[in-house]
Amino acid sequence: MRGAILYGPRDVRFEERPDPKIIEPTDAILKLSATCVCGSDLWPYRGIDAPAYPTPMGHEYCGIVEEVGSAVRNIKPGQFVVGSFFASDNTCPICQAGYQSRCVDARLMGAEGAQAPWLRVPLADGTLVATPDIPSDDLIPSLLATSDVFGTGWFAADAADVQPGKTVVVVGDGAVGLCGVIAARQMGAERIIMMSHHETRQKLALEFGATDIVTERGDKGVARIKDMTDGLGAHSVIEAVGTQEAMMQSIRSTRPGGHIGFVGVSHGVQLPGEELFFAEVHLLGGPAPVRRYLPELIDLVWKRQVNPGKVFDLTLPLDQVAEAYRAMDERRAIKALLRP
Amino acid sequence: MRGAILYGPRDVRFEERPDPKIIEPTDAILKLSATCVCGSDLWPYRGIDAPAYPTPMGHEYCGIVEEVGSAVRNIKPGQFVVGSFFASDNTCPICQAGYQSRCVDARLMGAEGAQAPWLRVPLADGTLVATPDIPSDDLIPSLLATSDVFGTGWFAADAADVQPGKTVVVVGDGAVGLCGVIAARQMGAERIIMMSHHETRQKLALEFGATDIVTERGDKGVARIKDMTDGLGAHSVIEAVGTQEAMMQSIRSTRPGGHIGFVGVSHGVQLPGEELFFAEVHLLGGPAPVRRYLPELIDLVWKRQVNPGKVFDLTLPLDQVAEAYRAMDERRAIKALLRP
Repeated sequence: MRGAILYGPRDVRFEERPDPKIIEPTDAILKLSATCVCGSDLWPYRGIDAPAYPTPMGHEYCGIVEEVGSAVRNIKPGQFVVGSFFASDNTCPICQAGYQSRCVDARLMGAEGAQAPWLRVPLADGTLVATPDIPSDDLIPSLLATSDVFGTGWFAADAADVQPGKTVVVVGDGAVGLCGVIAARQMGAERIIMMSHHETRQKLALEFGATDIVTERGDKGVARIKDMTDGLGAHSVIEAVGTQEAMMQSIRSTRPGGHIGFVGVSHGVQLPGEELFFAEVHLLGGPAPVRRYLPELIDLVWKRQVNPGKVFDLTLPLDQVAEAYRAMDERRAIKALLRP
Repeated sequence: MRGAILYGPRDVRFEERPDPKIIEPTDAILKLSATCVCGSDLWPYRGIDAPAYPTPMGHEYCGIVEEVGSAVRNIKPGQFVVGSFFASDNTCPICQAGYQSRCVDARLMGAEGAQAPWLRVPLADGTLVATPDIPSDDLIPSLLATSDVFGTGWFAADAADVQPGKTVVVVGDGAVGLCGVIAARQMGAERIIMMSHHETRQKLALEFGATDIVTERGDKGVARIKDMTDGLGAHSVIEAVGTQEAMMQSIRSTRPGGHIGFVGVSHGVQLPGEELFFAEVHLLGGPAPVRRYLPELIDLVWKRQVNPGKVFDLTLPLDQVAEAYRAMDERRAIKALLRP
């Protein structure tokens, strides 16, 4: 088959790769219905956290089960399934506590390279969740979104303890932040303030349920949030960027006793202990345990109560994966869906 | 009156100070039954975070109400009261959410200098909690402990989400860490592991309910905790030191999805964002909102269900306050109680 391979900074190629096959008896092979480029793929694409080149890319996926290993019990060929960007056994104590992204046997799906027509999924029974039936085509983007960005935005809102009637700030107007707006809305937040200075992203945030847009950043952004919250700060803040500025903006926008859910993959961040101590905020973040939320999120999508697939504002055939990266890198697209 | 004044590093004197008097109508004046030296007093005593010298010292107190301002409604002269090291109105949204140490009108009691026979307490109705009656003398140390160290240890255990049947690690064998052991025991933890290499502190930890002692520190300490928890780490970690080593030891000793309550006043700590992100632990810390817990903790002491006063292993008359600092600085005493 042919799939996406990163050869170096800004050098993604669509090239011949070995067809995936069952290696462990707990594996499944999927024929992908859709895959996509993640905001986090842009870090290595830009040469930051550079992997050993060349490296296959992609970790978001949904599709039809083609084949399963001899130890797979629950996942069957022919099912339509979604999985997280971490494979997990879903049985260890960490998984059972709901932190499947830190499963004792967690496997990074990025290593399998999901920007391809076929994908090996390890630990299939613990990782994959089947939809009630084969979905209609228009549901595919939203089902694909549950695999990462919607699941991650949902975790961020959950980690930020979003509650009915409360005020939520979203730092980061990428696909994850936008999905955080959907999550906050579903969780009953009264006020959802999106920090954004991109018009198309602002529009989508409002469509997803944001009540306010703040265009200022950094200290000015913090001052605006304080102004809007009687000087106290927000109850909940979703951080979906991963930079020092975004983290500090999040900490300073949260009221004492409030909660921050941070899901932007941290890059070069150092949190000053004194400030964090006196801020007295709850902090929880990391790679989202999407598997915990998949059944609930698939159900919301299936019933058409949410439409996170709208974050895909560019759809391309898989063989144009290089253009998908370029469009996201240049912020011409929020998120690009790829059709194998 | 005479009270403790810090003139410079390791230079505490017992000197004439103005008698406190009602300044604001919400004030109360207490005749203190006991006061003490806090581990956090040792930072300025050692010249770290040096204040403008000379400065009055002390922020832990209990005693009899002598006089109240014209706006005080609930606190009455003649009552025995305990208050936190932060005065708070207990009515603002932050107080109502349980974070009185970050009250919008919070006042540091250290500014009043509680190592003295008399003390002005601002916002008396919001700050002070009266005991059911005048306590017998043997209850005074434990009631004094609720003012800070027991309240802080309790908050740390609460912030670390200590649950029945779970494993708790306590980093820091000072009075706060030891009180964290009492709290963890009261909250039903199954296993309470105290990190300590001081024999007297180990003994007290075991008496308070610790089930295990780990003498190793840093990476070796972390490795021991992992060994004791099937390689996973503890569910809950109480950090009661405030240094980089203690914070990193705490983060690395916590299982993914676990909770850290950090109450050691942070000094020179920088938390690496990447490690915190992938650790995927809950973090909450800061100056303990002791006022939230005071009614419950006073009740536990009153019923003699707990005896946090045992952390005071040295009692001196107030005029020997300089020796109290020396004994704690040289680790000859865990915590020194002072009798005016």
